[in-house]
Amino acid sequence: MPKAKRNAFYAQSGGVTAVINASAAGVIETARKHRDRIGKLYAGRDGIVGALTEDLIDTGKESARTIAALKHTPGGAFGSARYKLKGLDHNRAEYERLIEVFRAHNIGYFFYNGGNDSMDTAHKVAQIGEQLDFPITCIGIPKTVDNDLPRTDCCPGFGSVAKYVAVSTREAALDVASMARTSTKVFVLEVMGRHAGWIAAAGGLAGNKAGDPPHIILFPEIPFEQTAFLARVKRCVRNYGYCVIVVSEGAATADGRFLAEAGGKDAFGHSQLGGVAPVVADMIKQELGFKCHWAVADYLQRSARHIASKVDVQQAYAVGKAAVELALKGHNAVMPIIVRKSSRPYKWGIGHAPLAEVANVEKKVPRDFITADGFGITAPCRKYLTPLIAGEAYPPYRNGLPDYVAIRGVPVPKKLRTAFKP
Amino acid sequence: MPKAKRNAFYAQSGGVTAVINASAAGVIETARKHRDRIGKLYAGRDGIVGALTEDLIDTGKESARTIAALKHTPGGAFGSARYKLKGLDHNRAEYERLIEVFRAHNIGYFFYNGGNDSMDTAHKVAQIGEQLDFPITCIGIPKTVDNDLPRTDCCPGFGSVAKYVAVSTREAALDVASMARTSTKVFVLEVMGRHAGWIAAAGGLAGNKAGDPPHIILFPEIPFEQTAFLARVKRCVRNYGYCVIVVSEGAATADGRFLAEAGGKDAFGHSQLGGVAPVVADMIKQELGFKCHWAVADYLQRSARHIASKVDVQQAYAVGKAAVELALKGHNAVMPIIVRKSSRPYKWGIGHAPLAEVANVEKKVPRDFITADGFGITAPCRKYLTPLIAGEAYPPYRNGLPDYVAIRGVPVPKKLRTAFKP
Repeated sequence: MPKAKRNAFYAQSGGVTAVINASAAGVIETARKHRDRIGKLYAGRDGIVGALTEDLIDTGKESARTIAALKHTPGGAFGSARYKLKGLDHNRAEYERLIEVFRAHNIGYFFYNGGNDSMDTAHKVAQIGEQLDFPITCIGIPKTVDNDLPRTDCCPGFGSVAKYVAVSTREAALDVASMARTSTKVFVLEVMGRHAGWIAAAGGLAGNKAGDPPHIILFPEIPFEQTAFLARVKRCVRNYGYCVIVVSEGAATADGRFLAEAGGKDAFGHSQLGGVAPVVADMIKQELGFKCHWAVADYLQRSARHIASKVDVQQAYAVGKAAVELALKGHNAVMPIIVRKSSRPYKWGIGHAPLAEVANVEKKVPRDFITADGFGITAPCRKYLTPLIAGEAYPPYRNGLPDYVAIRGVPVPKKLRTAFKP
Repeated sequence: MPKAKRNAFYAQSGGVTAVINASAAGVIETARKHRDRIGKLYAGRDGIVGALTEDLIDTGKESARTIAALKHTPGGAFGSARYKLKGLDHNRAEYERLIEVFRAHNIGYFFYNGGNDSMDTAHKVAQIGEQLDFPITCIGIPKTVDNDLPRTDCCPGFGSVAKYVAVSTREAALDVASMARTSTKVFVLEVMGRHAGWIAAAGGLAGNKAGDPPHIILFPEIPFEQTAFLARVKRCVRNYGYCVIVVSEGAATADGRFLAEAGGKDAFGHSQLGGVAPVVADMIKQELGFKCHWAVADYLQRSARHIASKVDVQQAYAVGKAAVELALKGHNAVMPIIVRKSSRPYKWGIGHAPLAEVANVEKKVPRDFITADGFGITAPCRKYLTPLIAGEAYPPYRNGLPDYVAIRGVPVPKKLRTAFKP
């Protein structure tokens, strides 16, 4: 095989989303259009773990129909991993192992689909490849429901969870409002976002005007103050008859203590697992006496492909496609980014940023996106968020259920005699 | 106004659903077609409480467009109430007050849209009307996500929550499966159903064949046994790499103790509010050491109009329409029911049953719908459930969000000088 035509490797990393497979489809379909330049396209089974253990999937064995169906299938079709490669100094062996596997399979392109940590890894792989005289083109593909990557206007995966949270908040609020006179007065919805409150902010889109639910949003960016919070809850119930609260899992007090950690032990003496919503609901019930209900969306929110944002699906596909095109244009150690050209009407394009500028930087919700009292979103925030949840992209259904696809996952024959235990 | 043309009263009762407003639309649109027989159609603001306090809404002031939009709007548009009228012997005054209000507004038809308790109330109102020489036609309209009303093949509201739970289980399972190698191994989804496991059973539709998630369903009908349960969890993780569990909020041990009650106190000394999912997740983490995630859908499930079952929406409308038609045909103290004529292909029609046979009877999941081991659903159960989640009935969207409607809610001028405190 001539040097010019090297193989490629794609892996999914970290928490999966409703649209990460759309990015995979973008990579695969685009690579297939460039068979003159890219040989085989392999995927890591369970992300980077598949590379380390030489457990590769031959995407060439998947039908065009399966790849197209990835655009409407949530989760990580090739498997993802929570596995962060340590720094080069601490565990050089892991990076050397990656290069060993890539060399054995003539892999010249590394497409890594993930968040902050993954962009850091992709950056390091590019560096170590050069050091080991095995040049490899490393392109990061942004993905995170947390929307906390810098440089890109937004992160594929976020728009869909934002839509899910906004829709669910609007729906649950109608439920609570209709029964508040004789039943539940306060509803608490817990959403993801340990450090950045983007998802919680999206809950704010459920309302259109003052007084609309959600009445309170608790952001990780704003220190929680019980007195002010309870006063606001009380005021909402008095004014509107009920109160809807969206709370980020990362809501914390000024000293950095997560509210979720206030959860105690159960009857078996087990400490409660996570869950800030029940803590907040208990606080309200005990201090104000209101009947509360609470929901924890957890994985439901980030896998809800049935209510994905059409814009998000398009952008997820676009960054996958752009990753391959950037690689073929000779770029290295970069990440395609979403560039916003206009909010109303919404216009966007694809640019790119150096991985060095993306890795390990966390973009939080800016203060001017949050109202002065810390409990809501401002007009600029609304202007930013609204286009990201635009459009529906319903999956096909069969027998009342979304017709999601599974890959065949045909393994690539191993070439190395060495094993590796990640 | 001639006796022949009396007014009508409609009220929503108990926990609302994604489609109860479709029943309201069925009642209102059908009544409007029979202006020669039915005068005004009033609705109780906040359910029966609106009748007791003479707080009536004139549905005639709502546009045809608003009424049509109720078909795609969740929650209770007129307000619902958790307010159970006591027995005739215990609180005759409440029934007499109802008749007083109905008499003042020349109401000859009482349409009561609710579950078991409400059917009992409607039945009693019919009886007391006769006793007080104020004949009133009382028609119950079935509504409950719990699907536990007898005589009817299914209950409007259930099909949509069933679809939500089946879809969400399928989606979350894809998420868990893709990350199980290095992250969460067990996912627990808590769903509604305190006494009957119909909603939990619907989670079983997420899978098509043996080994598909959900791997375990915990029904209220099957006493929880920790040893057998944990052994099954362990086996699933060993065989499939992960385990997805759907648990009914009503899951209980043989002595009748709800698992949710095992929740203890938090750091503030507050007892935990509800939540069987965290209890089950803690048990697994402590006893088996698996990383767990859990979700509590709570109101999200019963308000999720965005993913409603088309069949459910149609049936909800049909029972509303049938209620008016039954009344005009001279029926009294009956409830329209869904009659299943065939499962494959699914064919249904509307019949009716006496309220006396419906009131206070709870239909649980029959034993032969649950697998021998108590952890899954059988083929007959699947055959029963599948048609109920068929079809999508998406609401219209604006700016990325469902365009739900709110009523004007114009009050009917009061005619009584007496007040009533419910």
